[in-house]
Amino acid sequence: RISWISDIIVVVSPENIETMKSIIEKYGHKRVTVVKGGITRHRSIFNGLKVFAENEFSNHLLQKPEVVIIHDAVRPFVEEDILSKVVIAAKEHGAAGAIRPLVSTVIASAADGCLDHSLERARYRASEMPQAFLFDIIYEAYQQCTDYDLDYGTECLHLALKYCKTNAKLVEGTADLWKVTYKRDLYAAESIIKDNLSQQVCVITDVKEAVAQVAFLLHDSLKSQIKVEAISVSLSNNDSHLQNIFSGQCYNFVCINDKKYAIQETQQLADMLEKSNVPLLYPVVLISVHLDVSENISFSIGMEELARIKKFAREVKKKNILVYGLLIQYK
Amino acid sequence: RISWISDIIVVVSPENIETMKSIIEKYGHKRVTVVKGGITRHRSIFNGLKVFAENEFSNHLLQKPEVVIIHDAVRPFVEEDILSKVVIAAKEHGAAGAIRPLVSTVIASAADGCLDHSLERARYRASEMPQAFLFDIIYEAYQQCTDYDLDYGTECLHLALKYCKTNAKLVEGTADLWKVTYKRDLYAAESIIKDNLSQQVCVITDVKEAVAQVAFLLHDSLKSQIKVEAISVSLSNNDSHLQNIFSGQCYNFVCINDKKYAIQETQQLADMLEKSNVPLLYPVVLISVHLDVSENISFSIGMEELARIKKFAREVKKKNILVYGLLIQYK
Repeated sequence: RISWISDIIVVVSPENIETMKSIIEKYGHKRVTVVKGGITRHRSIFNGLKVFAENEFSNHLLQKPEVVIIHDAVRPFVEEDILSKVVIAAKEHGAAGAIRPLVSTVIASAADGCLDHSLERARYRASEMPQAFLFDIIYEAYQQCTDYDLDYGTECLHLALKYCKTNAKLVEGTADLWKVTYKRDLYAAESIIKDNLSQQVCVITDVKEAVAQVAFLLHDSLKSQIKVEAISVSLSNNDSHLQNIFSGQCYNFVCINDKKYAIQETQQLADMLEKSNVPLLYPVVLISVHLDVSENISFSIGMEELARIKKFAREVKKKNILVYGLLIQYK
Repeated sequence: RISWISDIIVVVSPENIETMKSIIEKYGHKRVTVVKGGITRHRSIFNGLKVFAENEFSNHLLQKPEVVIIHDAVRPFVEEDILSKVVIAAKEHGAAGAIRPLVSTVIASAADGCLDHSLERARYRASEMPQAFLFDIIYEAYQQCTDYDLDYGTECLHLALKYCKTNAKLVEGTADLWKVTYKRDLYAAESIIKDNLSQQVCVITDVKEAVAQVAFLLHDSLKSQIKVEAISVSLSNNDSHLQNIFSGQCYNFVCINDKKYAIQETQQLADMLEKSNVPLLYPVVLISVHLDVSENISFSIGMEELARIKKFAREVKKKNILVYGLLIQYK
């Protein structure tokens, strides 16, 4: 996703290595090396760093980078902006990390389970990820640190300070960098993904006037809530405008027509979507609307068509495309 | 909800007092006094405490309690268990508060925006709510404390320690006590409420064998995922078993019958639910299933019935009852 990152090291517990490799293959991730994790956080990170420095940890020694970013998989919503900020700060200061304001006051407890003292909230921050380091600094810190650090420590910035006298630059991160920890965090993460997927809808019609008019009305009533692209195309030629929309991360399509066999266009669009790799990461929603304004409307023909759409929907669901059929008979 | 709490003081910003009063009236909350908040957290809490000690702050001076609980509205999922734990601890120690483990490492930043030092995560805790105090201790602390405390402080436990030499007992709280802070937290809160509402479903049938058989099969296929109560009743007599289910916080009902006018039973059940006050706080879902196994099935009669259910659903939606109709025609 980010062109200036040359290699990605994924550190995984031994029992999950095969699963991780199959995920990387399935989604076509590039530049990824999978490394076996250790029994603690610091031991796992150290294993990841060794790929750039010690032959034994990889089939081919990867080229040592100037700067390395350390990130947690439990913070899935990391944007390019914060990554480049910590990298730039690390180049200047040797180390840098994302921080957030504290949500609750932090207190120290005494041995008897009573309050010892409370910290003044404004003077402290929560240390989050990503963090970035000059490779030589963080690798040196991991080589120097004790077994106690490796077994009980949790903070990379602390190691850089303790063993390399490097005071990390602290960079304000976005709220979305929080750590997915509890069951409720999974729901929160799901809602953020859904929000992102429902930013844009593309309304596709053929060029006929009556149908284009419906698309225009739909555009008008939706535009206050969502970004709407309304286009009139013949799907048979591989329209470049549509290809642009695919690459613009659009996951919602409404296909309106008044042809007798509406399903053919829906199938064509599903084909194009599949080839575009859009449905690989997230499900694509495709609503096929058939306007039936003919003189002699037949209820049974309509039902047959819906049955065909239903059958088709079941097939393409396996390809992560969710098809919904809507038949509107209008006298 | 909790009988041993004698009074509830709700401290609200001046512009929201009327809204709060109408909420209290709408939901029939008892034992509640609304008090005007101050410009900071501590000033608001102090205003709340004054209701028990100073005549000017209330029309009628409430009886001074032995122990007072302080809680935040941003932590909506507080259970009786943690409330009673902090109260018992406060009676013994003078003060007590809920704590949670830290999710991220806490760090101190220097004036130049770089890391000064990081705290050892295991030695610190996040201070959460609820907290409880002997009334005399916390009221004394608020009377003693400085304007600086009132304007910039955030921690009640700190005031009890600083001004009354009371080291609060720290009580481990549940994960659900987190502070609803960001937009994602609203989604998380919604998911917790939905989880709670979908713990139980009640399947209601009349006593006929064929219908009871369907209810039995439904019970069997649902019971691995949700607690199912399956009962056969005639809704016309106010069944006491059903009343027990209402008071057991059941929010989901499936009503199965094969009568010609299924809607009458659905209406009866909706009436009973409304009288029970179950839909006051949360929406109730009522699925009306009509099994049509007659010899000469008529599609148009079925459609008419669904239209009636739809009309009825629109009416009772205003009463927070969500009715769904399902017509199953089977030859």
